[in-house]
Amino acid sequence: MTNLYDLIIIGAGPAGITAAVYAARKRMKFIVLTGDIGGQAAWSGDIENYTGYQFVTGPELVSKFEEHMRRYSIDYHENEVVTSMSKLNDLVKVNTRKGDYTAKAAIIASGKISKELGVPGEKEFRNKGLTYCATCDGPLFSGKDVAVVGGGNSALDAALQMIKIAKTVYLINSTDQLGGDAVMREKVQGAPNVKVISGAKVKAVTGDKMVSGISVRTKSGEESISVQGIFVEVGLIPNSSFALLVERNERGEIKVNCKNETNVPGIFAAGDVTDVSEKQIIIAAGEGSKAALSAFKYINQSR
Amino acid sequence: MTNLYDLIIIGAGPAGITAAVYAARKRMKFIVLTGDIGGQAAWSGDIENYTGYQFVTGPELVSKFEEHMRRYSIDYHENEVVTSMSKLNDLVKVNTRKGDYTAKAAIIASGKISKELGVPGEKEFRNKGLTYCATCDGPLFSGKDVAVVGGGNSALDAALQMIKIAKTVYLINSTDQLGGDAVMREKVQGAPNVKVISGAKVKAVTGDKMVSGISVRTKSGEESISVQGIFVEVGLIPNSSFALLVERNERGEIKVNCKNETNVPGIFAAGDVTDVSEKQIIIAAGEGSKAALSAFKYINQSR
Repeated sequence: MTNLYDLIIIGAGPAGITAAVYAARKRMKFIVLTGDIGGQAAWSGDIENYTGYQFVTGPELVSKFEEHMRRYSIDYHENEVVTSMSKLNDLVKVNTRKGDYTAKAAIIASGKISKELGVPGEKEFRNKGLTYCATCDGPLFSGKDVAVVGGGNSALDAALQMIKIAKTVYLINSTDQLGGDAVMREKVQGAPNVKVISGAKVKAVTGDKMVSGISVRTKSGEESISVQGIFVEVGLIPNSSFALLVERNERGEIKVNCKNETNVPGIFAAGDVTDVSEKQIIIAAGEGSKAALSAFKYINQSR
Repeated sequence: MTNLYDLIIIGAGPAGITAAVYAARKRMKFIVLTGDIGGQAAWSGDIENYTGYQFVTGPELVSKFEEHMRRYSIDYHENEVVTSMSKLNDLVKVNTRKGDYTAKAAIIASGKISKELGVPGEKEFRNKGLTYCATCDGPLFSGKDVAVVGGGNSALDAALQMIKIAKTVYLINSTDQLGGDAVMREKVQGAPNVKVISGAKVKAVTGDKMVSGISVRTKSGEESISVQGIFVEVGLIPNSSFALLVERNERGEIKVNCKNETNVPGIFAAGDVTDVSEKQIIIAAGEGSKAALSAFKYINQSR
């Protein structure tokens, strides 16, 4: 075979880049195929929980990741979107819009995308008060009024986090009843500084340089709520649609074990595209490292 | 109860410190009990695989971790060695040489210690050519002659890594036959630049400012081998002897699932003290984050 790689890494967010650094250090012959560099991390506002960096913005951390990757002269193809993959005689074949690649193993680290509200002002105020991650950005809104949009467990989790940090938390939920776990729901409903607004549809995000309000329509009409922060928690979409050969859960996340193996030998996955219990940059980086070392062992142990 | 914590974190290496940063951001009431700051990472030479830092020494990275922890005014007790722990009425009790602490949950992140050879020169040349981690420090010995001491899988793994990097790899093994997996053994033995010295006992590490040789005794007498690097891979000891209430594997590592839960509800574990598939700083940090978020959920969901 003319161009057989040891490994193909799909994606270049924190998981993919860390996998690439480890693969380079193991002298593996590999390639990184990715749409962009940085993934979700590039869209984070201020990051305060990547251990070792007290304060760094998403783009800054991503540029440090990228520098780190460049140091090893890693062969990476940007704007190379994977469309499908298959297994053929113990080899993994990955197809993109530009070509086909073959390797002994692959790591899927293609991340996720947050579902958007699709309302006016959302794109404009992204990272200017509007965010998709309470765990990442919550502490920035200490003592302020915030809205959490959503009614499932991730919205409840965001609300529970913000109760302790923010002044008032408006939980804006499109259905008549909150979903999620009972215990979490009760804790949210029992908190003195939460106002649950059910049956409400977000119409617009407003502000000047930063978010100053959110407009919602309820049965009693349209109202504007003054908030400095908005947490959109209406769901996430894993970028796994090209990976139909591996087992995924009901949310479309690729199922992995603690060694980052999927159900298909030779195919590993790491980071937000997987069913890992938490989606965090430092976790994705650790998972990327584990996946690369597992892939290295797999290749080393195959004859 | 007078002083009931939400969480006790045992250990302040990469896993414990990351857990502490996440716990602080979740506004948990917690304490860190630790013998030292930094754990094994403090003993690493040059670190090139902590994503975001292209090149940093172990002590430098640890000081950045520590600064990060100090930023949150985290209550941590150094020189506080945990001697035992127990579960009482849904609470976790942790005993140290100085006192007793009670919490709703605990994270064990107490790391491991590399077994030492116990020979003259070993302490003197630590991080001056002698290291306990081929994955961490291997690439620093490009084109040089090195010795790997040990005969099990971790020694074979170190040898396999160094075959691609070093000029000559001397694998010094105390028994007559190499142990470990057949496939790995065959690959090591088939490599042109490996010399396996079996039935050999290390007597001393020699050098001036840096390692320049290793003395071994075999059946045919004592000989001195000229090497610039020595990788000691004779095993690791997890610091888990105080945690007899949780399930451990045959190596003494605490068994955790992918969410860092042990078999005892409310007790979590992260990093090198666990059976996580790889022992790496970036992995330990990710595991510490997962453990803290799992502990937060556990406390939040308990009534």
